[in-house]
Amino acid sequence: MSKRYSFKNDYSEGAHHEILRLLESSNFEQLEGYGLDRYSDAARDLIKKELADQSVEIHFVSGGTQANLIVLGSILRPHHSIIAPETAHINVHEAGAIELTGHKINTVPTPDGKLTPDLVKKVLDLHPDDEHMVKPKLVFISNSTELGTIYTKTELRELSEFCHGHGLYIYMDGARLGTALTADGQDLEMSDLSSLLDVFYIGGTKNGALLGEAVIISNPGLKQDFRYFLKQRGALLAKGRILGLQFLGLFTDGLYYKLARHANELAQKLAQGIKDLGYEMFSDSPTNQIFPIFPDIVIERLWEEYDFYIWTRIDGARSAVRLVTSWATPEKCVDGFVQKLRQLS
Amino acid sequence: MSKRYSFKNDYSEGAHHEILRLLESSNFEQLEGYGLDRYSDAARDLIKKELADQSVEIHFVSGGTQANLIVLGSILRPHHSIIAPETAHINVHEAGAIELTGHKINTVPTPDGKLTPDLVKKVLDLHPDDEHMVKPKLVFISNSTELGTIYTKTELRELSEFCHGHGLYIYMDGARLGTALTADGQDLEMSDLSSLLDVFYIGGTKNGALLGEAVIISNPGLKQDFRYFLKQRGALLAKGRILGLQFLGLFTDGLYYKLARHANELAQKLAQGIKDLGYEMFSDSPTNQIFPIFPDIVIERLWEEYDFYIWTRIDGARSAVRLVTSWATPEKCVDGFVQKLRQLS
Amino acid sequence: MSKRYSFKNDYSEGAHHEILRLLESSNFEQLEGYGLDRYSDAARDLIKKELADQSVEIHFVSGGTQANLIVLGSILRPHHSIIAPETAHINVHEAGAIELTGHKINTVPTPDGKLTPDLVKKVLDLHPDDEHMVKPKLVFISNSTELGTIYTKTELRELSEFCHGHGLYIYMDGARLGTALTADGQDLEMSDLSSLLDVFYIGGTKNGALLGEAVIISNPGLKQDFRYFLKQRGALLAKGRILGLQFLGLFTDGLYYKLARHANELAQKLAQGIKDLGYEMFSDSPTNQIFPIFPDIVIERLWEEYDFYIWTRIDGARSAVRLVTSWATPEKCVDGFVQKLRQLS
Amino acid sequence: MSKRYSFKNDYSEGAHHEILRLLESSNFEQLEGYGLDRYSDAARDLIKKELADQSVEIHFVSGGTQANLIVLGSILRPHHSIIAPETAHINVHEAGAIELTGHKINTVPTPDGKLTPDLVKKVLDLHPDDEHMVKPKLVFISNSTELGTIYTKTELRELSEFCHGHGLYIYMDGARLGTALTADGQDLEMSDLSSLLDVFYIGGTKNGALLGEAVIISNPGLKQDFRYFLKQRGALLAKGRILGLQFLGLFTDGLYYKLARHANELAQKLAQGIKDLGYEMFSDSPTNQIFPIFPDIVIERLWEEYDFYIWTRIDGARSAVRLVTSWATPEKCVDGFVQKLRQLS
Repeated sequence: MSKRYSFKNDYSEGAHHEILRLLESSNFEQLEGYGLDRYSDAARDLIKKELADQSVEIHFVSGGTQANLIVLGSILRPHHSIIAPETAHINVHEAGAIELTGHKINTVPTPDGKLTPDLVKKVLDLHPDDEHMVKPKLVFISNSTELGTIYTKTELRELSEFCHGHGLYIYMDGARLGTALTADGQDLEMSDLSSLLDVFYIGGTKNGALLGEAVIISNPGLKQDFRYFLKQRGALLAKGRILGLQFLGLFTDGLYYKLARHANELAQKLAQGIKDLGYEMFSDSPTNQIFPIFPDIVIERLWEEYDFYIWTRIDGARSAVRLVTSWATPEKCVDGFVQKLRQLS
Repeated sequence: MSKRYSFKNDYSEGAHHEILRLLESSNFEQLEGYGLDRYSDAARDLIKKELADQSVEIHFVSGGTQANLIVLGSILRPHHSIIAPETAHINVHEAGAIELTGHKINTVPTPDGKLTPDLVKKVLDLHPDDEHMVKPKLVFISNSTELGTIYTKTELRELSEFCHGHGLYIYMDGARLGTALTADGQDLEMSDLSSLLDVFYIGGTKNGALLGEAVIISNPGLKQDFRYFLKQRGALLAKGRILGLQFLGLFTDGLYYKLARHANELAQKLAQGIKDLGYEMFSDSPTNQIFPIFPDIVIERLWEEYDFYIWTRIDGARSAVRLVTSWATPEKCVDGFVQKLRQLS
Repeated sequence: MSKRYSFKNDYSEGAHHEILRLLESSNFEQLEGYGLDRYSDAARDLIKKELADQSVEIHFVSGGTQANLIVLGSILRPHHSIIAPETAHINVHEAGAIELTGHKINTVPTPDGKLTPDLVKKVLDLHPDDEHMVKPKLVFISNSTELGTIYTKTELRELSEFCHGHGLYIYMDGARLGTALTADGQDLEMSDLSSLLDVFYIGGTKNGALLGEAVIISNPGLKQDFRYFLKQRGALLAKGRILGLQFLGLFTDGLYYKLARHANELAQKLAQGIKDLGYEMFSDSPTNQIFPIFPDIVIERLWEEYDFYIWTRIDGARSAVRLVTSWATPEKCVDGFVQKLRQLS
Repeated sequence: MSKRYSFKNDYSEGAHHEILRLLESSNFEQLEGYGLDRYSDAARDLIKKELADQSVEIHFVSGGTQANLIVLGSILRPHHSIIAPETAHINVHEAGAIELTGHKINTVPTPDGKLTPDLVKKVLDLHPDDEHMVKPKLVFISNSTELGTIYTKTELRELSEFCHGHGLYIYMDGARLGTALTADGQDLEMSDLSSLLDVFYIGGTKNGALLGEAVIISNPGLKQDFRYFLKQRGALLAKGRILGLQFLGLFTDGLYYKLARHANELAQKLAQGIKDLGYEMFSDSPTNQIFPIFPDIVIERLWEEYDFYIWTRIDGARSAVRLVTSWATPEKCVDGFVQKLRQLS
């Protein structure tokens, strides 16, 4: 059939078959509702083991915007603001969900989508303790970022130390955490996270789950009453088993890393193929989102067989596009893309 | 094995196998995200057909509290309040989700969980157009109600006419709509709803879906920009297909009604068995929730084999309990319960 | 002239002349803005002395609804609810201001407008620690109440102890605190308050100020960053001196108590005159709001010369009305009212 | 005495004596509460005459942040955002008050604090109708701006036409409207405003009132139920007369313009004196806020006798300062400042 293969995102397909299998096998078991079932408990145990931290609290929610708005909307006091990269998902692509919870986002321009102590300090310097302004209280980062870049262990430790030294929480949006942790050359590991971050989430939706993100609360002061916050934002699913089963599948036998590594490898193979043909990249991404720069005329032709988004205009004749691979991307589609591009070049 | 059978609720099991089959069969198809996939479209078409109304707008969300808070939090202006039965789910069991969106609920005591024009009028009479008080703007009902009772066509029409005659929206929480429409003696039909209600939702979670409620907007003035409201409350799932597929399954070949009818029939069989043994009922429910009154000593013994909630204390020695059947309840469990009760009586 | 004298409320006139004099005498002095001027500081010092508590934090705001919404909207977490009498101003006459800050009010029917440990306990009993419901966290009382009744020292201590023993804050709306403290037979004193209450406000508007309420924070955990909360709700006046000067006037030479005592004395004289004529009272109020029950035909005639509100219907032929005296009520108007009533009786 | 004269702001003094006189003369008159008194009505009539528009609706509030948050928080739907200059008061100096009402501010860098159709268009271009992003709905401007600059009639008309042509409301913060309308060379008049703007406010606090801003609603669609919004944000003062009387004073015999002109003239005299001494200005302001650039060593010496804020660092040795004159600034203080500066130069 003539359907174009899509590199538009990493949520075009359903779920890894192991997850479907778990849904099927547990289907007629009567279970507690609202995330208190034994499968959700088992998934939490697996994740705690992976984090090498038994003290964290883990809650499953349906999606990334939901995770972000519940955490930020619940742990902050009314006058607290959030420091985030200008490109942050919460700033651009969540329809004002965070502001709807009442909080300003203090945005920071950053070319690679990452924050550093220096960038955060600039915002703090503009906000002495003055009640006519907001009080920045939380630093928001994504890993991997909107531009596919990653935080190494050293970078994250430095940022974390800066935040904690300045009375700031640090929160990580891990919608694509799998790809960040399995990127080539990455030294940051899952077991580093809970000591560096106050709260974060491990993304399931973009790494082989049907839906679901696991919110991890490390900071003891932020754990109290969190299930109330889930409930009052509509995030407690009656059949919470669905969320638990996703993570049970993902964290059995390292499936989570395997799927992310697959996405990364195919993206990097794609990037290499593109670079070998002489094209530049807009961002230096080691993960599953790559941003090659193509002439518009080439883009038009590529669209005949492949679907993807334009990221930004570069000049009058060229644009950066975003190509995203996923846990489900077949290698032959990557090869096909490069071959097609070679014909056009 | 010794596990007790649970009559605690109608969301203890997973999904009807037809829904699981759809998840499986469509799994590797690349689809548009956020509810714009072809399966969600197909489900919307089926529901419109069922409603006999092509003009409605249909959005799928994950759960009932989410449906309620998004609809009420989005269509009302800041000074608008909601008139609801004192027993309403939004008033008691949603952790203040509605107030978190900024709106007061004007509660009405009502023995059977239902509102009438007279009951609504009492609230209006207390709220002349006076800016020192809230302005009631929406009437909230559930069908079936928290007490298992139902609105007939005449009742709903009278309430609807009263609301529209007084500038009020009428909204129906249909978490258990299936059981309301398939109850014995009910004359209200799915195709009546969109002309009587401004907004309502058709519940999936409690009628055989893994998750999902279908929000139906009939009032043209309330349709605009609704997807923004979904997004900013975290309700737009990236893999929106999951929600669409539930309703595709439920509304193919009348499965929705079949499952609800099964739940009702077993509940009524259970009720009859209980009444035959001489017990009274706390509420006159024709649907899948029944509320027999048992001596506490009997309750203790029933709990050895069956799980269920106490609803309310009746006197020093008796309580009303809530027994809920579902699409998945086996008839033998109903029979077993009655048999056990007979032994105790 | 023919204008009717108004007993509608205690804010019909402007301010005590001493306050106007202060506005005049300080007018051209250049002062710090936003409540940091020396007059506001002096007023805070006077109030602290009156409270016999140097540890409280004091903030001036413009009105009672503003005080209530800022305190409640700022110190509570999103899932916290407020326990209040059904008749509470925040429940009935603030246009949903509290719910707009996101919090549910759990209302308690109470014939005299007062809460007791038993009444509060009933709400707590309905709210075990269950994340599907709100979590009651603050008890709201008014003193004097909407019905003119007052809390004695013993009553307030018992309620306070109950609250603190159950993890609840206790907050007092003191819009008419002056009348509560100066009522005949009252043993509660200003210097008792800060040890019994977590937060409260001393009302100026209804006791001789042009505007202004003094929010007193006793609980050390609630003091932090409060000026931010004032600012972000629009309560920090640029010329904050206006508020400070009101309280400087009111708390110099006991003016606050003198004005309240005047209002109480005239109301009680009015009540005695009415009772002497054989009329019953709807509420047993020792303060400046009294609620006599009159035949409707008498009310019609009284309205020819006096203005006042009907409070509630008693039966087919009689209503309870509300008569309010103020710091500015002339004794001759009270005498005139009784005389007129005598003629009608 | 040794006290330094303050050029820190235009709200250091109390009120014009005519306003105090009105407070005094009306003090014992019994009046309706909450802004429904005859003085407030008279003030509204005077303003309507000045606007040459009988159709507007006018509400008085206590301060600028209150005006902004009530208007923006009430007329926008939850997904609507506000386009504003990066320097806007609502973005920087209102402690996140606007975000607390739930709305994102899309900020626009602009060197002179003013918006143009081109600048607004850039924001619109980034926000196609896409539910993953906010929907810009209102353009926020100040006149005069934070930098003392003004909109001429042509500029405001072009911006207004652009907004209305693109479905955007246009709102003007008129905290310093008087100075904008009376600036040298200004052709915009009070009577132009209601046809160009959907909502705006006429600032009293910074132009000789004790407190108070007059919110003017021109757009008929935005008038409904506005008093509810005032009430539920705590803005309806019981003794609303205080606000009405301010504007009665200000709009009798052109006092409003006279006071603003005085402030402008003294600021311009000050600016000329400074420029004559060879200093540059950071902003080209024809109003009562001027921003000269001084060596830090000069600033230190000036602070011995005058109080003012540093606005921004220019380089290692110089800063721009903000000098603000008011309706109450004596000419001799301006002369003294220039003389002192001459001595230092």
